Order: sequence, then C-alpha cells, then structure tokens
Amino acid sequence: MYGIDSSPIRKAFELARSIQNPINLSIGQPHFPCPPNIIEVLTKAAQDGKTSYTLTGGIPELKSAMAEKYRTQNKISYAHEDRILVTSGISSALFLLFNALVNEGDECLVISPYFLMYPAMLKFYGGKVVPLEESFKPEDLESLKSRKFKLIIFSNPSNPTGKVLSKEQLRALANLAESTGAYLISDEIYELFDYDKQFFSIGSEYEKTITLTGFSKTYNMTGLRLATILAEDKVIKALTTLQQYTVVCAPSITQWAGIEALKTDMSAYIQDYKEKRDFVYDSLKDYYPIQKSGGAFYSFFQVPVTDEEFIQRAVKKDLILVPGFIFCDQKNFVRLSFATEWDTLKRGMKALQELSKES
Amino acid sequence: MYGIDSSPIRKAFELARSIQNPINLSIGQPHFPCPPNIIEVLTKAAQDGKTSYTLTGGIPELKSAMAEKYRTQNKISYAHEDRILVTSGISSALFLLFNALVNEGDECLVISPYFLMYPAMLKFYGGKVVPLEESFKPEDLESLKSRKFKLIIFSNPSNPTGKVLSKEQLRALANLAESTGAYLISDEIYELFDYDKQFFSIGSEYEKTITLTGFSKTYNMTGLRLATILAEDKVIKALTTLQQYTVVCAPSITQWAGIEALKTDMSAYIQDYKEKRDFVYDSLKDYYPIQKSGGAFYSFFQVPVTDEEFIQRAVKKDLILVPGFIFCDQKNFVRLSFATEWDTLKRGMKALQELSKES
Repeated sequence: MYGIDSSPIRKAFELARSIQNPINLSIGQPHFPCPPNIIEVLTKAAQDGKTSYTLTGGIPELKSAMAEKYRTQNKISYAHEDRILVTSGISSALFLLFNALVNEGDECLVISPYFLMYPAMLKFYGGKVVPLEESFKPEDLESLKSRKFKLIIFSNPSNPTGKVLSKEQLRALANLAESTGAYLISDEIYELFDYDKQFFSIGSEYEKTITLTGFSKTYNMTGLRLATILAEDKVIKALTTLQQYTVVCAPSITQWAGIEALKTDMSAYIQDYKEKRDFVYDSLKDYYPIQKSGGAFYSFFQVPVTDEEFIQRAVKKDLILVPGFIFCDQKNFVRLSFATEWDTLKRGMKALQELSKES
Repeated sequence: MYGIDSSPIRKAFELARSIQNPINLSIGQPHFPCPPNIIEVLTKAAQDGKTSYTLTGGIPELKSAMAEKYRTQNKISYAHEDRILVTSGISSALFLLFNALVNEGDECLVISPYFLMYPAMLKFYGGKVVPLEESFKPEDLESLKSRKFKLIIFSNPSNPTGKVLSKEQLRALANLAESTGAYLISDEIYELFDYDKQFFSIGSEYEKTITLTGFSKTYNMTGLRLATILAEDKVIKALTTLQQYTVVCAPSITQWAGIEALKTDMSAYIQDYKEKRDFVYDSLKDYYPIQKSGGAFYSFFQVPVTDEEFIQRAVKKDLILVPGFIFCDQKNFVRLSFATEWDTLKRGMKALQELSKES
C-alpha cells in the first residue's frame, strides 16, 4: 500500500489553496453547481427518511430509469435492470471490476493517455498495463490478436485528452476483445460532454461490453458518489456480491437524486463548455501544438519543456495545471480543464500565451 | 468471487417481504428514524451545494469533532485529526483494512460469534480465520502468544450476541496483539447501545488499537454510509491512499450530517432498547437457555433443533429470525433483534414461547 504515490491532482489542489487568486485549470469537475431540481429531490429523500440501507444492487426505481436511458440514449437495446449495478461512483465501479476480474500478471490493454486511476488500480490488483495510443488505426490491432488480454479499458470521451473515439476504433476494440477473450470496459462518465455529436456507446453493438456511467461529472455530484455498471448478468451478480462485502450499497438518498438527474436538461451547460472548448483551442493554436477536444472538458497539449518545469513556471503566474506524465509515458504534455468561469479561463489563456514565449 | 454466498440476512429480508404481517426480528438496524436534527443538517448541506468531492480523508470539521468525541467519550487521549480517516461505513473501513493488511495465509484471530463480514472478507483477501470464543478468560490467551497473528478483530458490544467484553478480556487481547505483533481492531459501531455501562474502548489504554466507529446503527444512517477509523498515523496514511483509489471519499453531505449526529442526545432511544432487552430476557428465560444481552440490540440463544429447522418453524408463525450458523461454527443458535416496535416484539415473544413447546 505504501507504494502508490499520492495523486499530483491532489497536489495541484493543495497548491491552488496556497495562492491568493489562482487561475485554477486543474480541476476535474464542473464549475457549475448541481442543478437545483436534483438538490430538491436529494433533500426530499432525506426528509422522507430514506436513510436506511438500500438493496445491494441499488433501488429498483433507479435501475429501471437507467435501463431506459441506456436503451433510448445509448441505443443499447438489451439494457435491463438485471444487468445494472448501482455503485458509489466510477472509482468504486472500477475497484469492484478490477478486484473481481484481475489476477496477478494479467495483461490489461489501456488506451493512452489514460485516466490515472486505471493503471494505478490495475497494478494494485496485480495487472500488467499495456498502453495503446488513442490515435491507433483499426489495422494496428491485428498484431495484438494473438495476445491474451484480461481486459481492455478506455474513457470515452477521454480524460485527459478530450478525444472521442471513432466508431471504427471502437469496433476494432470490440473485435479485439472478442478474439482475445478480454472484457471490454467503456467508461462513459463524460458522455454528455460531446461537442460535435461523435460519441458512440460500443455497448450498442457489442453485448459483452461493460459500460460505466457516472453522475459525478455531468451533474456536479462528485461528492454524492453515484455511478452504474451495465454488463452481462453473471458479471453483475459477481460484482453485486463483492459490493455486499465492501461498501454494501451506494448512498441511499443519492440514488433517489440520480433518478431526477436523468430527467435534467443539461444542454445549456454543455453549450457553455462547447464555447469554452473553442475558446481554448483558438487561444492556444498559434502558441502550442494542440488539437481541438471532442469531448469532456479537458485539453491535453504539448509544452516546450518538461511538464514539471512548465507547471512550475505556470505557478509563478498563479496558473495551476496538471502534469501530463501521470496520464501517459510522455513528459512534455499538460492537462488543462476548461470547466471554469470565463474570467478565469481568459486569464489562463493569457498566461499560457505569455508562457509560450518564455521557452 | 462466485464463491461468496449471499447473506442469509438478506434472505430473511426477502422472506419478510413475502409475509403479509411479519414479526420481523431479523433486522440489523434501529427501528426509529434518523433524528430530525440530523436530517435537517443533511438537507442544509445539500441545499448549500456541498455536493463536490471532499478531501480523501474526510472534511476537517468532522475529523475534529470525532477527535474530540474520542478524547472525551472514549477516553482516548491521543486521538487527533491526523489519526482519523472518514469512510463510507464500517464495511468500507473493514475492506480498506483487510485489503491493506491481509496477505495470503495470514492468520487472523476473530472473536466468536462474529459479525459475518469479518470471516467472509478476511477469506476473500486470503486470510485464515482462527476463532476465539467470546467467553474466553485472560489466561486462555497464554497458549496463543507463540503464534503469529496478522490481526485480532471483534465487535464490542457484539453483533450477534450483545456481549460487552470485560476490561480484563480487552486487556488480554491487547497484550496478545502486542506480543504477536498483530493489529488489534476494535469495532465499536454499537458502543452507545451499552445498557449496563460496561463498555470500554481498549484504545484508551493500548495506543496501537485500530478503533472503528460507525454512525449507521446509532442514528439509523445505514444508507448514508459513514464511519471513522482511528489508528496510528502510518496506518491512516496507507488507508487514505487506498481510499483515494477505491471510493475516493465518504459521501459529502453525510459527513456534515455526522457532525450533527455527534451532538444528538440518543439516551431516550437507548433507554427504550434497554427495556426491550429486559423484556426479551424475561420473556424467554424460562423457555430457552439465554443470557441477558449487555449491549447492541440482539439476543443470541440456543434452540432445541438446528437453526435452519427452527427458522422454518418460526416462519410458519410469521416470525423472521437469523440462523446462528452464519455467525459461528454452531448450528443450534438463532439471532433475534429487538430493534423494533413493542407490538412486534410482544408478538415475537409469544411466538417463541409457543415454539419452545413444539420441540
């Protein structure tokens, strides 16, 4: 246990607290508050005394609403309550999955750059991480078909790059999963942050997909701990048993709030982030090699010095970023989150433009 | 994962739902609702938008309030914020501990009868369970001093027996922990349910104790997921890191409710359960070999046939109990919970008196 390093994201968080008026572009959650209708239902659930244990797998009402969401929004026709487990956030879902599936020495294909929890948790459970660049072409996977992977995992849209994987890429990954016997895990926590309508749930075509859906990012419910797993019956059964012996159930009142969240129109929030996505790209494209993000609320771009050096220079301008090395094997990228107020974002772009000239 | 059987407690729960007007004495949580002042603070935290991640270890305000509680109520003078981790309930605390501490083949001393999660989770992490009868005498431990235990664990007061361990027993366990290098884990989730003022926190004398404190049972917050771990700095650091890579943090608004819970006077509730404890004992002592419970809200007593047979006979009288075999190696005990309304309890005692004559 003493081997896992504390996350540099948390370090950025601490750093930001030490600066008087920081330009904090390190935060991995929306800057807007949880919408008031969700708060109202959360409040009502508390007042109605829904403070007892729920069923281990989650309240039937939420599972039913999620099944409907999967069928209509994600086009996953086989989605059904029995295939859904409600968990205490995506991290909890990942822990259940990795704990149940990964054995010592298992090779796990992780699309890179990756959510930093994937390799950290996989290694903790004895897995060996095999990275695959997110820019891969379907034919690149041919040479991998003779290997044996326990699982394939990616976040789509991606944290940290904002990349939305193409249908062709996703189909190639599903093919690879099928031919190597790997579990295909599609982490779709950022699915609503899809600015060019490119997002596609591979679960709609490949029934063995394990689809992860989170409430934290979309509705700013990170502290309320809620996510769901959609998978084959036998996987859900095993994970439910493990949940019974670990966190028991997701927080009761949060589950009721989740049902309301699904009814909430987030399009104005998404539109705001789309404009911020464009603003970041337009502000930086002449200063850094940068690609326009397709989704999530991050931009991941190359800097002219090492990430750690760049981060230190940024701090001198009160700007907080996250070093890229925690998301991939490269050491000259940084992650910027545009989930913030316009004022902060504008100050950040100005600081980044100045920083590019210092190198 | 497929090896862990679903808990018979859950089966009792399902069974109770199938009977029209069940006498349900199987439930492991208070029958009273979460007190209104706690609900109010929970509601206010939601309305104030406290829906984001908290620090991994918990909000400082709760840790500070817990440190004060440990110092004044439990007489643990060394209690300090840095030694406290806030978790998503006791089950989550156990999972963090066992995952971090237990390696394949480690021998773990478990006071028996035990909370069924202990052996189930210990075995999952590769531990070997060595049971020790709760009626042990201090001198019985002498012969164990040459063994090597990874940990010693008990719930005090006990689920399922309601036994409150004596100071002498606790001191003997602390001595054994010290001489064998074992971690001593004192699960005190039922501490307030202490009817004869016998409860004693061994952490007040043995500084290496890992003390677990839960909010679920005392305030009927089982679904809100909140507990704390008090332990040495290095243990807390390791567990905090593991929490960061699993559930991330305890639910944010629940943590605020926890502070209010600590200020809540529960004495009227405890007095009610004390009367129920007496009533159960007085009603059954001429029919079954039974001991008066010292704490928690359970009675654990021997029945004249196997527990499974007895449970089936009880169901015919609409009475739901939990079989003893899940808590110990014996197969002729049952667990009764008196955390219920007087009417239900009276019906239950009548049914049990009748059942004793059928054997």
